[in-house]
Parts: sequence; structure tokens; C-alpha cells
Amino acid sequence: MYIPTFEDMQAAQKRVEPYVHRTPVLTSEFLNGLTGAELFFKCENFQKAGAFKVRGACNAVFGLADDMLEKGVATHSSGNHALSLSYAAGRRGIPCHVVMPRTAPQAKKDAVRGYGGIITECEPSTSSREAVFAQVQAETGAEFVHPYNDPRVIAGQGTCSAELIEQVSDLDAVIAPIGGGGMISGTCLTLSNLAPEVKIYAAEPEQADDAYRSFKAGHIIADDAPETVADGLKVPLKDLTWHFVQNHVTDILTASEAEIVDAMKLIWKRMKIVMEPSSAVPLAVILKNKQTFAGKRVGVIITGGNVDLDALPWMEK
Amino acid sequence: MYIPTFEDMQAAQKRVEPYVHRTPVLTSEFLNGLTGAELFFKCENFQKAGAFKVRGACNAVFGLADDMLEKGVATHSSGNHALSLSYAAGRRGIPCHVVMPRTAPQAKKDAVRGYGGIITECEPSTSSREAVFAQVQAETGAEFVHPYNDPRVIAGQGTCSAELIEQVSDLDAVIAPIGGGGMISGTCLTLSNLAPEVKIYAAEPEQADDAYRSFKAGHIIADDAPETVADGLKVPLKDLTWHFVQNHVTDILTASEAEIVDAMKLIWKRMKIVMEPSSAVPLAVILKNKQTFAGKRVGVIITGGNVDLDALPWMEK
Repeated sequence: MYIPTFEDMQAAQKRVEPYVHRTPVLTSEFLNGLTGAELFFKCENFQKAGAFKVRGACNAVFGLADDMLEKGVATHSSGNHALSLSYAAGRRGIPCHVVMPRTAPQAKKDAVRGYGGIITECEPSTSSREAVFAQVQAETGAEFVHPYNDPRVIAGQGTCSAELIEQVSDLDAVIAPIGGGGMISGTCLTLSNLAPEVKIYAAEPEQADDAYRSFKAGHIIADDAPETVADGLKVPLKDLTWHFVQNHVTDILTASEAEIVDAMKLIWKRMKIVMEPSSAVPLAVILKNKQTFAGKRVGVIITGGNVDLDALPWMEK
Repeated sequence: MYIPTFEDMQAAQKRVEPYVHRTPVLTSEFLNGLTGAELFFKCENFQKAGAFKVRGACNAVFGLADDMLEKGVATHSSGNHALSLSYAAGRRGIPCHVVMPRTAPQAKKDAVRGYGGIITECEPSTSSREAVFAQVQAETGAEFVHPYNDPRVIAGQGTCSAELIEQVSDLDAVIAPIGGGGMISGTCLTLSNLAPEVKIYAAEPEQADDAYRSFKAGHIIADDAPETVADGLKVPLKDLTWHFVQNHVTDILTASEAEIVDAMKLIWKRMKIVMEPSSAVPLAVILKNKQTFAGKRVGVIITGGNVDLDALPWMEK
């Protein structure tokens, strides 16, 4: 296990800079009033390919050795990493093989193909995904870029909080959603070096709370195929991301499905931005734990904006 | 008829500055590729009260003489002017009476009340609106601030394009939706003085194309109660706005209901912003008239973001 270093994150900053946006930070007087905190939303929904994952994907793809370029890259992903790796591979002009659950939103499948990614479908469980992927990798010989348990990916995701602390001074805390833990690990990597006084919180759906239970138990607990509206957060922690969570996260807080959907709708309505259910989990837990965040300056990572507009969660009820 | 001057617009800039946002300008590589133009979206959906109309409303309210403060202001509006005038009156601490069609989106009614506005409902026709309003004004003695045919309002709306040309250099054209013509008139007022080389286009729904027909006929044609998904654009031109349209607009272009909804969905999906059907009409006409805009640098006014998330147009089909 190679744990990415602060120098890896700095190298990632130079490597990805031509291919990713420096996303804006938005604020909302209304949401500050509602929470009692000062919230600074880092809008990775405006990022290339619609999510922060393009940072890690570009770092992996543009760091790839020349002798791997012909075979390209491969991955499995619940969506945004697939988009992002396809985008990055397209920019470098190399093939990208993606194993994706057949239940992933149609909008994400279309977008992967739009960026030139080659999709092989699997069942919506961790076990099926890993089996199908092994086959694809054996056939293509492509370089595996794991969606989160990869030092190149974690170093890339760390560039997001490096920007955030340049854009907003004196943060007391940063909060991001946690699924596999790639964004949280990158945040830990960067902030533990550049701003160790900033507390790091992870926000997770109650219905996919394996990171929360892992954190409390002191070892990784992995569920196969949890169900949640926050479809980017169904995957379990792995050794690398567990390393960062265990050593640098202050707490993991959870929210119910209804709380996540309400928070999502509130952000759409008041901030006029389109973002995914996964990205609403931080605001949902802030609203549920006001005493923890009141009076604090809190960076909130809006992780992505790739949502199926024909299947919004408040329409399905 | 008092026609607002460039000096009125400059005074408005100073007067409204503490109460409105300098909204960002967003771009989309994807939409540039699709249209062949360079589009610069001036995002008034992120404006205070969710629309550009707060500019004109604040100019009227904060310019009000002291002896009118107790009686306050009154208006009739299909939505965003009502919100904006309520917001402005609330900031100045004076009453705001609003006559609103009973069919206006519930979200807008709730928001007007949220800002402290006092609503009286009318039928969804120009004639009913004007009759009910006359009664409210007689009872309260409040100062009428017309949603668009008012020199204070037009001067206020003109501050939007003044910002835009500071934010984006060398524009060839600016395009905005047209309903009553307040935004277009303010744009004409400002650009005819500061950047007379910039062409000004107005975009209108085919199903409420009274401004288009007026422009072609050379005199105002007003319809009573047209039906369109672009609910902010149902009202007719009046003498002041007709003055600006007639003298400074290069052309008025129209789009069908389906083209408007498709353009709206495209902006939500690719730009990750929440905006109203009315705000999508400019992109709809650009997509329909590519030859007019190809190779040009075009400012596109996204006029507002107050949409009922429970009744999105592509869900109702």
C-alpha cells in the first residue's frame, strides 16, 4: 500500500490544471440564517464532466507511462468516475473501458459514451462489479484506475480543498460526502498538511452508513449493494481511504433519505444550482447537527451535478 | 411620458449597489460547440430575490420620496417583479401591496409573502389585473411601481448590461427575453450610450409573440392573456418600452414551446444551473437561428431562477 504524499498532491495540481476548472465558491444568506453557520459551497457540480472526480482521473491519466497509452485505462464506477476517466482519456487520446451497474442513471451512461468511454454493464452489487471488471481487465490489459482506492486518484481529489482554502480564509471545518472515501481522503491529505487546524467531517446516508460504522468500530465494515438516493455513495471504504478516515476525520454524521432529498431541493430552490443527491448529504447533516456547526466557517463540498432530470427524487414519490 | 436617461441609469447603479448582487457570467464549451457562437451567460438567476427585476424594484423603492414611505408601494406582476418589490420594500421597511394572478406558481406566491408582500389575487388576464389593481391602489394610496413601464424600473434594469460589458469585452450582441420589455429597454438604454456597436436581440415565445408582431407592424399590438410555459413573458409592451424596442432593437426572434423547454433542460443539464422557462427563450432562438449568431460573442441574459420544482415543464407532459 502506497500512501500518497503532500508532494504527490502538489504534482497533481500542476498535472491537472490545464484540464479542470477552478470551481467557484458560492454562499447563501438564507442557508446561513437557517443553519447559524457560515457556509462556503465549493461547487464541483460546475467541474468538467460534472464532478470533482475529474481531478483524480486526470491525475491518473496524465501521469500514465508512455508504454501504457495504447492499452489505455479501465475502471468500475457508479457513475462520475466513469464520466471523468472517459473525459480524461479522451483528452489524452487513449481508450477507456468502464464497468458500470446496469441500474446507473441513463444520463450517466449516455454521458460516458458521449466522452468516448466503452461500457460493459454489471449487476448493481460490489461482488458483480468486481467479477465483471476482472474479465474486462484481463481482455484489454488496460491500466486499472480505481475510483477512489488509488494514490493517484486521492492526490488528484486533494487539489479541490487546496483551492478551497485559497478561496476562503479561516475555515473552521470542511464537510464532504463519503462513499468510498476518495474526496474525504484527498481533503485529509491536503488539509493535514496545509491547514491542520481545520476539522474534517464526512456526511453519509443512513441507508449506506458503512463508513460511519467502520469509523465507530475501528475497522472497515463493507456492505454489498446498499440502497440510497445518494447513488454516488453506495461503495465501501478500502485500505487507502480507511487510512485517511481513521487518522484525520473528526466525525462521520448521517442523514435519512428524506433529509437528503429535502436538503437537495432546498439547495436547488435557494441557490439555483443543479447538484446530485450525494452532494446534499453535507447540508442535510449540518441541518441535523446545528450545534456542531453554529458560529463556524464551514466549507461544504458540492461534489457533482450529474443528475437525471427525468427522475428527480421528489418526483418519484 | 418621461424617458429615462443614461444619467438615470448611472444614478440607479449607485442607488441599488448595496442591495443587489453583481452576478457572475458563466460559459459552456458544450453550448459554444453546439451553437458555433461564444455565449456569455449573465446569471441573474443568482440575483437577490432570484431575478433581475430586483434592480428596477430597488431603484424605485430607494428613490422614493420620504412623504410616500408610510403608504408604501404597490404593483401588479406575473411573479418576479412582485418578489423583487417585496424584497426592496422589506429592505427599506415600507409596505408593499401586490396584485397577482391566482394562477401564478405557488412558489412565487409563497416567496412574495416570505419577503413581507401583501397579495391580492386577480384573474390571469391583463384586464382583470388592471381592474383589481386600481381598487388596491385607491384603498391604500401606495405608490405604483409598474413592473416595466416605469422610468425608474427601466433605469434599474439597465444596470445589468452595464455590468455585463464590464465583465465581458468586445461583445457583438446581447440577447434577452422580452415580455413587457423592461429588461430589453434597460439594455437599450445602457448599450446605446456605452456600446452602441453591440446589437440587441429580443427573444419571445411564439405563443406570446405580441412584441414580435408589434415590431414588424410598427405599432404596439397587445394580447389579453396569452398562454406560454415562459410565464414571465405574457405581458404586452407599453409606451415606454415600445420607445426603446422601436429605436434600438435589431430584431425580435421567436421559439416554440417545445424549443423553449428543450433549451431550458439543456441549460440545466450542461450548465448545472436552475433557471426559469422565460430565461431559456434566448438560447432557444440562438439554436434556431445559428447563422445569425455563429462566430459572434453574444451576451445572454439569464433573467431569473424562480421555478416551481414540483411542476417542471418536462414533467407535465
